[in-house]
Amino acid sequence: MNDTTVSRRLAQFAVDATWDSLPQSGRHAGRRTFANAVCLAVGASRHPAVERLLSVLQSLETKPEAGLLGRPERIAATWAPLLNGLAMHVEDFDDTHLPTVIHPGAPIVPAALAAGELSGATGEQTLEAMIVGVEVTLRVGNGICPAHFERGWHVTGTTGHLGAAVAAGRLLGLDEDAMVVALGISATQAAGLQENIGTMTKAFHPGKAAADGVEAALLAREGFTGPREPIEGRRGFAEIAAPDPNYQVMTEDLGTNWEIEKNTFKPYACGIVSHPVIDAAIALRDRVDQGERIAEVEVRVNPVVLDVMGVEDPQEGLQSKFSVYHCFAVGFLDGAAGPAQFSDSRARDPEVVALRGRVNASPDPSIAKDEAWVSLKTESGREVEHYVEHATGSVEAPMTDEQLREKVRLVVIPSLGAKAEEFVDCAFRIDELESLDMLFTLARPH
Amino acid sequence: MNDTTVSRRLAQFAVDATWDSLPQSGRHAGRRTFANAVCLAVGASRHPAVERLLSVLQSLETKPEAGLLGRPERIAATWAPLLNGLAMHVEDFDDTHLPTVIHPGAPIVPAALAAGELSGATGEQTLEAMIVGVEVTLRVGNGICPAHFERGWHVTGTTGHLGAAVAAGRLLGLDEDAMVVALGISATQAAGLQENIGTMTKAFHPGKAAADGVEAALLAREGFTGPREPIEGRRGFAEIAAPDPNYQVMTEDLGTNWEIEKNTFKPYACGIVSHPVIDAAIALRDRVDQGERIAEVEVRVNPVVLDVMGVEDPQEGLQSKFSVYHCFAVGFLDGAAGPAQFSDSRARDPEVVALRGRVNASPDPSIAKDEAWVSLKTESGREVEHYVEHATGSVEAPMTDEQLREKVRLVVIPSLGAKAEEFVDCAFRIDELESLDMLFTLARPH
Repeated sequence: MNDTTVSRRLAQFAVDATWDSLPQSGRHAGRRTFANAVCLAVGASRHPAVERLLSVLQSLETKPEAGLLGRPERIAATWAPLLNGLAMHVEDFDDTHLPTVIHPGAPIVPAALAAGELSGATGEQTLEAMIVGVEVTLRVGNGICPAHFERGWHVTGTTGHLGAAVAAGRLLGLDEDAMVVALGISATQAAGLQENIGTMTKAFHPGKAAADGVEAALLAREGFTGPREPIEGRRGFAEIAAPDPNYQVMTEDLGTNWEIEKNTFKPYACGIVSHPVIDAAIALRDRVDQGERIAEVEVRVNPVVLDVMGVEDPQEGLQSKFSVYHCFAVGFLDGAAGPAQFSDSRARDPEVVALRGRVNASPDPSIAKDEAWVSLKTESGREVEHYVEHATGSVEAPMTDEQLREKVRLVVIPSLGAKAEEFVDCAFRIDELESLDMLFTLARPH
Repeated sequence: MNDTTVSRRLAQFAVDATWDSLPQSGRHAGRRTFANAVCLAVGASRHPAVERLLSVLQSLETKPEAGLLGRPERIAATWAPLLNGLAMHVEDFDDTHLPTVIHPGAPIVPAALAAGELSGATGEQTLEAMIVGVEVTLRVGNGICPAHFERGWHVTGTTGHLGAAVAAGRLLGLDEDAMVVALGISATQAAGLQENIGTMTKAFHPGKAAADGVEAALLAREGFTGPREPIEGRRGFAEIAAPDPNYQVMTEDLGTNWEIEKNTFKPYACGIVSHPVIDAAIALRDRVDQGERIAEVEVRVNPVVLDVMGVEDPQEGLQSKFSVYHCFAVGFLDGAAGPAQFSDSRARDPEVVALRGRVNASPDPSIAKDEAWVSLKTESGREVEHYVEHATGSVEAPMTDEQLREKVRLVVIPSLGAKAEEFVDCAFRIDELESLDMLFTLARPH
């Protein structure tokens, strides 16, 4: 590392990176990240958590300056990111940077959208700002994970703050000094506890990161002051986030190697570490005769699965997203694991409850996070087993463009009906738009 | 501890505590905390940090539902606490709970004011909500400090979130279940890094805690969901805040022993650990002949002083508040250490710069935080020394009511002129008011 500080180096990059300097693969990864996030927000636009949040926000605010994806309302540019970010994350169906388990879309896309609307940005400028923001979040994340995650932080909520400030700061025209301040104001608000998993408050984290990021950029533009080394200072974000942060990975090859290219997309609407088990459940479903009763299921997984997905008897939909037992049951019974499989009613369905009660899960450190070994025994005594080496959506088995388009098309159909295809197209071609108007217009429910 | 969880017990207390159950000493401590905070906000109402923040907020919001102390404007009830909280803290002149170094007024008073205005509360209800909120913040703080502070957290920003949510939640009529959720939504946003010391962003911490607390209470009232154990859960606030939190001190004798009675008030507008040195500087000033030149000053202090007050050559007023060298110099030269002694111009004054350059400070673990030993040598070779056992404003030498009234009267005079006395009276008698209108009316500048 040269003598430029980490925060300064990230701010330089945040200000100087250009669309032209991005490789095709980085732009492509950016379009996928953007489209996946905005479609999820449209899909969740009537979720109870969204309705309750909007009810509060509408009681407070009146200035219609920023759009809400999938809804006709417009609200203040500091609040719209909170709602859009919550909506993108609430179904646990979003993107994942596997090395850090950060979901970068939900905190950063909404900040770029709101600041893009405030500043009248083009689609290309908005996408570029989002990509640069994602890069800063993932770089800092790489330097503090997995220790930061293991301490109990919801890393999407914490590190998402930085990228949101960067994305908004670019679009609001911050210079390098102001960008350091924006990083500082956002870093000092970087929070989010894993204890909230399975509740609405978990999805509130990326929303608040997005909103705090926009606010940080606005304050920095106004001349607010902050420290020179908000990330690497002795009492800065990284030093408190984790023991021995790795600053080299935060800045090395910045602008050459693009971390966003490692962003992956979830085929199932639940905690990502259960995805290999769902792959196995869907495969096993085809190998058992209809009507055959299941006596017992044995699941062997990486220990982290039971750590974050260990809810044995979930009572609500949001909770069921963190139950590897429920995941197996719906995968096996429905052959799917979309938002419908994690509804309150599905969480309480007697057939699901009965099957998940027969699932035993054991941790095995020799099994990777995207790997699973599942065997089942029928009541007639037959044994069948299935091994998943890399789950669908992992780095080794990524969702193809076609799979991703099909996923998000299904997500937006309930809200947009016949306009669904056109909206998905628009989301994947965001960098060709002259402004964001078209995106928000198409996102309005039919 | 009985089988009720910590979060549940704190929520019960937050909902059930009554004005009648408060001892006179608790009410008295509450009035002092309240009056000191609101007067500081009036005094700082034209500070550049306040102006810049308000400029951003006014560009966004239009609903005039909550007052700003010392200003004619009214803004949204979710933003007014941010501005009032920043104003209460920006001069580093506020209250201090010495066992934790939490400044409870700045995060909690603004939340009580905004929620009090929203709900049409009386002065007594508002003060009572503030006291209960302060109690929850200090109780949780006792359980995680000093380890939480030593990790680099600005404890006012972190723990202030909880008390702000409690104060707002009481006034917004939350029941016990909703109060647990409000604690959860605020706890998951509890942040604030010490790296920001000496910048505007430090004062942003309690402001944001206040605003987040009001927002948390509003969301909880709307039916948002959160975890059952946001404080003590395995990945809850306390477990991540510090190793081995002490849960017993969080709930033991709750409602019987009132921690707010230990809240103290600063006689000087800077980091509290430098106060014994300022006491000594003011005492030494009287023992040296006018015109005698100072050759050298030796200061021996607790190590924490150099840790948080070690800026040797501050360039700006905010920075000079964290320089024990500057503190000695202005105390000695001016016989005072109010906001005027920590202005940008005083930080750059050649006489001050010259004197502080002659101050040597050395850490001594055998010296307590409110203790100092200072000796000086004049150019003529004379040596004088002064020892301070307990700084003014410490638990052992608290500011009397008369001293506190005089302090805050001087603070509000520049804003309020002839109305100053009446405003100070009103602030100390807040629990006699039928509504908060009078307070905000008197707080408007002349």
